[in-house]
Amino acid sequence: MKRSALSQLARRTPEPAISWLMQLTLDRPNLISLAAGFTDNSSLPVDETRELLDEILRSPRGGRPSLQYGSTNGDPHLRELTAAHLARSDAAKPSGVHDPARTLVTGGSQQLLYITTEALCDEGDIVLVEDPTYFVYLGITQSRGLRCRGVRLLEDGIDLAHLEQVLEELKRAGELPRVKLLYLVTYFQNPTGRTTSFEKKAASVALLAKYERLAGHPIYLVEDAAYRELRFSGEDVPSALMTRFADRVIYAGTYSKPFATGARVGFGVLPPKVFAAASRIKGNHDFGTSNLLQQLLSRALSSGAYHRHLPALRKRYAAKAATMVRAIREHFPESVAWAEPRGGLYVWAELPARVKSGVKSKLFSTALKSDVLYVPGELCYCDDATRRKPNREMRMSFGGAREETISDGIQRLAAAMRRCGIR
Amino acid sequence: MKRSALSQLARRTPEPAISWLMQLTLDRPNLISLAAGFTDNSSLPVDETRELLDEILRSPRGGRPSLQYGSTNGDPHLRELTAAHLARSDAAKPSGVHDPARTLVTGGSQQLLYITTEALCDEGDIVLVEDPTYFVYLGITQSRGLRCRGVRLLEDGIDLAHLEQVLEELKRAGELPRVKLLYLVTYFQNPTGRTTSFEKKAASVALLAKYERLAGHPIYLVEDAAYRELRFSGEDVPSALMTRFADRVIYAGTYSKPFATGARVGFGVLPPKVFAAASRIKGNHDFGTSNLLQQLLSRALSSGAYHRHLPALRKRYAAKAATMVRAIREHFPESVAWAEPRGGLYVWAELPARVKSGVKSKLFSTALKSDVLYVPGELCYCDDATRRKPNREMRMSFGGAREETISDGIQRLAAAMRRCGIR
Repeated sequence: MKRSALSQLARRTPEPAISWLMQLTLDRPNLISLAAGFTDNSSLPVDETRELLDEILRSPRGGRPSLQYGSTNGDPHLRELTAAHLARSDAAKPSGVHDPARTLVTGGSQQLLYITTEALCDEGDIVLVEDPTYFVYLGITQSRGLRCRGVRLLEDGIDLAHLEQVLEELKRAGELPRVKLLYLVTYFQNPTGRTTSFEKKAASVALLAKYERLAGHPIYLVEDAAYRELRFSGEDVPSALMTRFADRVIYAGTYSKPFATGARVGFGVLPPKVFAAASRIKGNHDFGTSNLLQQLLSRALSSGAYHRHLPALRKRYAAKAATMVRAIREHFPESVAWAEPRGGLYVWAELPARVKSGVKSKLFSTALKSDVLYVPGELCYCDDATRRKPNREMRMSFGGAREETISDGIQRLAAAMRRCGIR
Repeated sequence: MKRSALSQLARRTPEPAISWLMQLTLDRPNLISLAAGFTDNSSLPVDETRELLDEILRSPRGGRPSLQYGSTNGDPHLRELTAAHLARSDAAKPSGVHDPARTLVTGGSQQLLYITTEALCDEGDIVLVEDPTYFVYLGITQSRGLRCRGVRLLEDGIDLAHLEQVLEELKRAGELPRVKLLYLVTYFQNPTGRTTSFEKKAASVALLAKYERLAGHPIYLVEDAAYRELRFSGEDVPSALMTRFADRVIYAGTYSKPFATGARVGFGVLPPKVFAAASRIKGNHDFGTSNLLQQLLSRALSSGAYHRHLPALRKRYAAKAATMVRAIREHFPESVAWAEPRGGLYVWAELPARVKSGVKSKLFSTALKSDVLYVPGELCYCDDATRRKPNREMRMSFGGAREETISDGIQRLAAAMRRCGIR
């Protein structure tokens, strides 16, 4: 009889792709999911977390405060430890950038991405993203009515020439005032596993800065470093906070993936004006992340438990990645291209020309019938009418599954590929 | 040189009044704050929480799942326990309303309020609120560009005649299609301490339903029950879910205030369509509240620890309320009106005509000079041009302060009143 009372935002917010994929898992008990980006179960720091929480709650000074409300920006000690931890990772000299005053604690880094986007973008504004990118971020942009432009991703980060071309097109169209940010997943990217070189970060922010005068306002680089600490080979790369344009960088980090995933504590380092806005918005969201979880992370960092945990975790993911790579090497048809990851949770593969991987493809349904699930690459591409969405890639996660399962899953997938005529 | 890149939402989001008040506390070490809505420190269930977490993390079946990602809607067991707990409080017969499938777990009930408002309201839409109401909710409406209409609050809930009058005015102005919800804090209201009778809840939703045809869509009652379990005298009142219009009710509850505040776990019970929208939006916010905290609440509820804790907590707040009431009775000038609370965290007082209590008033600055802080009543009124904002009320919290401090604070406040000529 009547219209719905739902807002535009609600109508624009689709069921996230990942929920739909997870639902498929529930309906098929024998399904091997290489789709979910879960973390490794066996290396979750269960005993460490128990001991840390026990210490916190036994402590006369720590027990009650951890169960009381805190402040919106986060526990001061955790903000200090986080800024110091990041400064160490960046080998930064004191500069005022790796600063507790710029550090906001959030409910996972996802909340930081949501709030930052709320703080910067109005409906119809434009965000630049990698082609492909993290699909949950695309969910945020879609729900908020933002327009996306995809920038080609190469092995070492975005294609700078393409970024410039996109900015020039937007300039000609008079759209630069609507461009608010460039979103990059810079370490072991979700979904491709690629890492952006420091030189590319520096060149990207410098290029954005060139267009600011015509935009009439700052254009920010949002650096999503969610997978930074899941590195199992190679050297760490300094963050974009180390470029000359640190005041244009919003850094999103998390403790969920490298430590106690279920604690869901993340953080951001933001330029002062954006920090102030994000803090006010977080005041409306929840006026502060759980103090108990923040104390847990504070103590994990200050006691050394966090840093003792990392090497074991990295070794574990390296072993799982090696298992997946071995199985792929052995079983995948030769015409499928893929790259060995050096960190993160994902292997990205590309099927030969003219073979599709999408949710409506023969391969996807064949794989599902064979009880194996992957993330179709098309879900990781924004809506951008200036190019066709690639539809022959796939993301496979080695994060959550056990090693036998990973091997089995890859074999099932390889068999499905052959059944679809891929050689 | 240039404009800011901040969104309209960010520009409309002011520093929350409560942050500003808390900042005053930090700057004056001897200040007694009767402003903050903190919970009682001494009754926080520190030992219980430690034992519950220890059990969870020692358990072979519970340890790892509690540190893994969960699902966006919340842990299925906690959703069941929550629906059952609420059904018991409401003495509800099975009806499909107190249903796990309608129950969404959130990061405190604040997040539920935020997401619900996102799900229902577009910029320029109208929400009806109590006069006065919870000021952080007003922060949400302001940041999202909503228009508010205040409905007079009587001793037992809103003035129904006034609600009808407001709806008639909106009807005449052709604005009913913009009216999305009525927000009521129904138990020991923040800031007045008043409780809405069941009859008023039933009459309110029935009245809203009458205007739906002209609105062209459902108009929801958002029932914020944050203080429901902090009852120290009188009987519990059934929620609006027990009215004939349960499919128009969004119930917001929390475990933060009655149990481990720093855990920040809240929940909502929502009609299916609103649930679906809120769930999708929460997927973008954080794809699920911390699993560890959810397991803590699950175990607190299922082990009985939660229900064993409640009587002690209620007794504690009753004692603190009695302390505040005694001090007020003894020291406040006779012309100041106030009411004894039967639950919650607040006493609400009204100064005699022509005396102001606002942030710019002589009383507020005199109180601050005397090192005592209250929440000026004016902050609890929405912007509504159809009436003047009352400016002679004050909210005093007995939640966080110790009993000696409560008495001292009230004495300082009484002295400040006399210094301002109040007799």
